[in-house]
Amino acid sequence: MANSIYSSQQLFQPCLSNKHCVPKKTNLLCFASSQLNPARSEVSFCTGTLLIPHPNKVERGGEDAFFVSNFKGGVIAVADGVSGWAEQNVDPSLFSKELMANASSLVGDLEVNYDPQILIRKAHAATGSKGSATAIVAMLERNGTMKVASVGDCGLRVIRKGQIIFSTTPQEHYFDCPYQLSSELVGQTYLDAVVSSVELVEGDTIVMGSDGLFDNVFDGEIVSTLAAYSDVVEAAKALANLASNHSLDSRFDSPYTIEARSKGLDVPFWKKFLGMKLTGGKLDDITVIVGQVITSAASPQLT
Amino acid sequence: MANSIYSSQQLFQPCLSNKHCVPKKTNLLCFASSQLNPARSEVSFCTGTLLIPHPNKVERGGEDAFFVSNFKGGVIAVADGVSGWAEQNVDPSLFSKELMANASSLVGDLEVNYDPQILIRKAHAATGSKGSATAIVAMLERNGTMKVASVGDCGLRVIRKGQIIFSTTPQEHYFDCPYQLSSELVGQTYLDAVVSSVELVEGDTIVMGSDGLFDNVFDGEIVSTLAAYSDVVEAAKALANLASNHSLDSRFDSPYTIEARSKGLDVPFWKKFLGMKLTGGKLDDITVIVGQVITSAASPQLT
Repeated sequence: MANSIYSSQQLFQPCLSNKHCVPKKTNLLCFASSQLNPARSEVSFCTGTLLIPHPNKVERGGEDAFFVSNFKGGVIAVADGVSGWAEQNVDPSLFSKELMANASSLVGDLEVNYDPQILIRKAHAATGSKGSATAIVAMLERNGTMKVASVGDCGLRVIRKGQIIFSTTPQEHYFDCPYQLSSELVGQTYLDAVVSSVELVEGDTIVMGSDGLFDNVFDGEIVSTLAAYSDVVEAAKALANLASNHSLDSRFDSPYTIEARSKGLDVPFWKKFLGMKLTGGKLDDITVIVGQVITSAASPQLT
Repeated sequence: MANSIYSSQQLFQPCLSNKHCVPKKTNLLCFASSQLNPARSEVSFCTGTLLIPHPNKVERGGEDAFFVSNFKGGVIAVADGVSGWAEQNVDPSLFSKELMANASSLVGDLEVNYDPQILIRKAHAATGSKGSATAIVAMLERNGTMKVASVGDCGLRVIRKGQIIFSTTPQEHYFDCPYQLSSELVGQTYLDAVVSSVELVEGDTIVMGSDGLFDNVFDGEIVSTLAAYSDVVEAAKALANLASNHSLDSRFDSPYTIEARSKGLDVPFWKKFLGMKLTGGKLDDITVIVGQVITSAASPQLT
């Protein structure tokens, strides 16, 4: 056990500032839930989003897809098309985009019953494109319960009072091969999803993203970046740009290369002998959704 | 996005064997839930536990406390008394032990309603000892939903098919000062608990422990150790002994010292100049609970 009896105020980490903001797509969606019962506090998301495509895939908008809905407390989702399909002359973006379009239209479906795992099941079943994708869906109840279902290595963090209090964990078959929903029988299904939930309170911030975010930005950087931005759109921009900058930096020791080295991947032995090691960010599509939990009474932040 | 389309079987990590087993307290509790509806699969925990006290606190049994209950799908909990109270001539073990005793007796309480956060509230309110403790409680519903409430830096991992799929995150005011339930008003309450849940399936393994486990054993080591033991008692022994061995090893680069260095704590500059760095395990009480999710029809493992 730690030695310290608590007797002082919480310390916050210092802020990182983001110097380069070149957003490609931004979006702000704020909505307060209806106040059916004034005596009971109801919550919803105020969200900012940014998708920065892989530098080589800008023309087609990349292979990530996402949606944000204001149904009930709010629904957010990200899917990331598996790029390996390009080798089979299949556009990897078609599956992820159709999957998210289907999921978006099924949010209020009675059979889905506001269950993210069932939403994944029905959206996957309705998707006819060839390909595969990782996917994560989070659905916020107005009472503060956020249910999450995830297949693969998209991710989600919940930050409260400057600390990450909840984190999803990626699923992979082996390094760089995540669990994936697929047009083929060999892939995973909603039954392979990790299903969890967390109780949110006003002021909590959530960050959802494709692996392009989490492979390039450390959790500590996510926390310090959020501390520097009170506006969700600016926070999403800053995180996506930080990920983009790191992804282009061949000297940055990224979460991706640290993971690679831990799996035995590294530079050739003669480079190691010269003191070199595998470093660099990971070029990828980068999708970031930042959501702030607000109550019905709170004013959405519009800047 | 990762490049790889999934087309092969999942790869498992190699196993670590544990060479030194000197258990201090062990316990096996296996129970199958009543099969009220044979058409519906119901789950419960089969658990093994081990508590190894801090080497200097063996006579009093250390300052950790825990309990395991077979109510509904099963309840497991760990509390860790804050050692700093000894400086004020207060036995740090009294608070954690009374808290766990109270929680154990309140598991079936109607007002608790099988909610771990309410269990913490009522157990805390009933605790009269001076002191403070971190605490974690997990309650498994027979349908597979495991609800978790945690204040501070006790932890929990869920392992499925050789991967961690769910993980709690510690809360701390600053390095080595965790959130803590206290006899004093300055401490935290059930309202500060992180409340989450995860859907479990047959075969899932959960590992709950005090920070004495997670400060000395990496997640990868937890996974590889579990892969080497099919019996929950042996797995709990192996994990606790691995943590104990690491805690006594001044050269081991533990999760605790890595965290310390990331917070700016290190050896004096002249030692750094000589290439030295802060290393070593963390001497502490170590509590480990390993739970395996079994269905009503499954035979508990007894070895």
